[in-house]
Order: sequence, then C-alpha cells, then structure tokens
Amino acid sequence: MKKRADFGKHYLIDLRDCDPEIIKSVGPTREIVLRAAKECGATILDDYFHQFQPIGVSGAVLIAESHISVHTWPENGFAAADIFTCGEMKPQVAIDIMREGFRAKETTMKVKVVVRGQLDGD
Amino acid sequence: MKKRADFGKHYLIDLRDCDPEIIKSVGPTREIVLRAAKECGATILDDYFHQFQPIGVSGAVLIAESHISVHTWPENGFAAADIFTCGEMKPQVAIDIMREGFRAKETTMKVKVVVRGQLDGD
Repeated sequence: MKKRADFGKHYLIDLRDCDPEIIKSVGPTREIVLRAAKECGATILDDYFHQFQPIGVSGAVLIAESHISVHTWPENGFAAADIFTCGEMKPQVAIDIMREGFRAKETTMKVKVVVRGQLDGD
Repeated sequence: MKKRADFGKHYLIDLRDCDPEIIKSVGPTREIVLRAAKECGATILDDYFHQFQPIGVSGAVLIAESHISVHTWPENGFAAADIFTCGEMKPQVAIDIMREGFRAKETTMKVKVVVRGQLDGD
C-alpha cells in the first residue's frame, strides 16, 4: 500500500462579530457559503442546510475536493466554518467571501490550518 | 451581544491502516458512519455520501449537534474524519465505531481536539 503523508489541508475558521441578521437564517447563509464554494474553484456535489428554531444555521457542502461546513450562533455573532481541501482550489477566496458575507471582522477572525495525515495528537 | 468563548469541540481524526475493501465504497462506509452517529447519541438531520470512481468516498452527516464527515483514500488505507460537537453526545463512541468499522489501527490513529471559539491562529 502506498505510503503518503499529506492528504490535504483542513482549514478551521472562527468568525466573530458576524451580522446576526445574516447568519440567523438559512437563506443568506447558504447563498454566501455556496458562492464561496463556487468562487474558490470547488466542484459542488451536494449541500444541506438546516434552520434551527428560532435562529441559527448548520450547513455542509460536499465538494469533489472534500467539504465546507458552517455552524452559526447568531446570538453571539459567531460562526464556525471549516474547509477541507485535497484538490485544486483556493481556500483563501472562500474564507474571504464568508468573512465579508457574514460581515465578520478580519481583525478577530482566526484561521487554523491542519495538514491531514500529519495530526500530532491532542 | 453575549460574549462566549467555547462553541464546542472539533475532533479531527486520522485513521490509518484501514481496510481498503471497506472504505472504497459508499455502502459499508456510510453504514459505519451512520452507526457511529446514532450510537454516540447524535440526532441525524441528513447525510450525503459520494462515490468516487473507481474507489473512494466522501461523506457528511449533518447532526443537530453539528456534523460528522469522512473522506477516504483506499489506495493508501487512509480515512480522514471529523466530528464537530456542540451538544450532548459522546464523540469517543463514534471514534471507536469508525476505527473498528474501518479496521484502522488504534496505535496509529491520531485524534486532535480543537475548541472552537478558541483557535490560536495558524
């Protein structure tokens, strides 16, 4: 079996100070995440977004290059996104579109990149 | 807006030495991941699994507590999973079921836990 050490990059993105009016509903949240997926060059296979009551969204977009997910806490202006990419795409484009779309602050956004296949344990 | 620092735990799981016969197809892979989701106490909202040609699987399960995803490289005996949980569930149960189901070795499995809302940057 082929040995391999790099199975793609997993971007974890904490988005703060998001506009609650945007991230509270599936409509605008899904539109922004799908636009992020398309613009970064991903090939969308399927997507599913869930509306929590009264507010809040969970969504996952399965892409040929792996996935993009988002979970929102409008009451805290917070969104947790991740992008797992193992193909040709530009994650930074997707990150920028989500940050701008959700009106999150660049200064308080945190991005952590983890190379899959090289986890160093907890 | 309420300040909050902990939006749940994000488990990244690198599974090595998986049985290629299991992780090459949607059928057994999906069965194992859905069983992992149910047994760990998650509430499944929807799931989508994609069969790559000739082999390989990408799947995402949206759960009320956030999500579980898996991407497989049968040619390398490798599966990259993640579990994002922000509710009452037992991620270790899901991890054990996936490891046993995929026949991954416990000794070479790596699990990294990241608290969302507390990313320390790249």
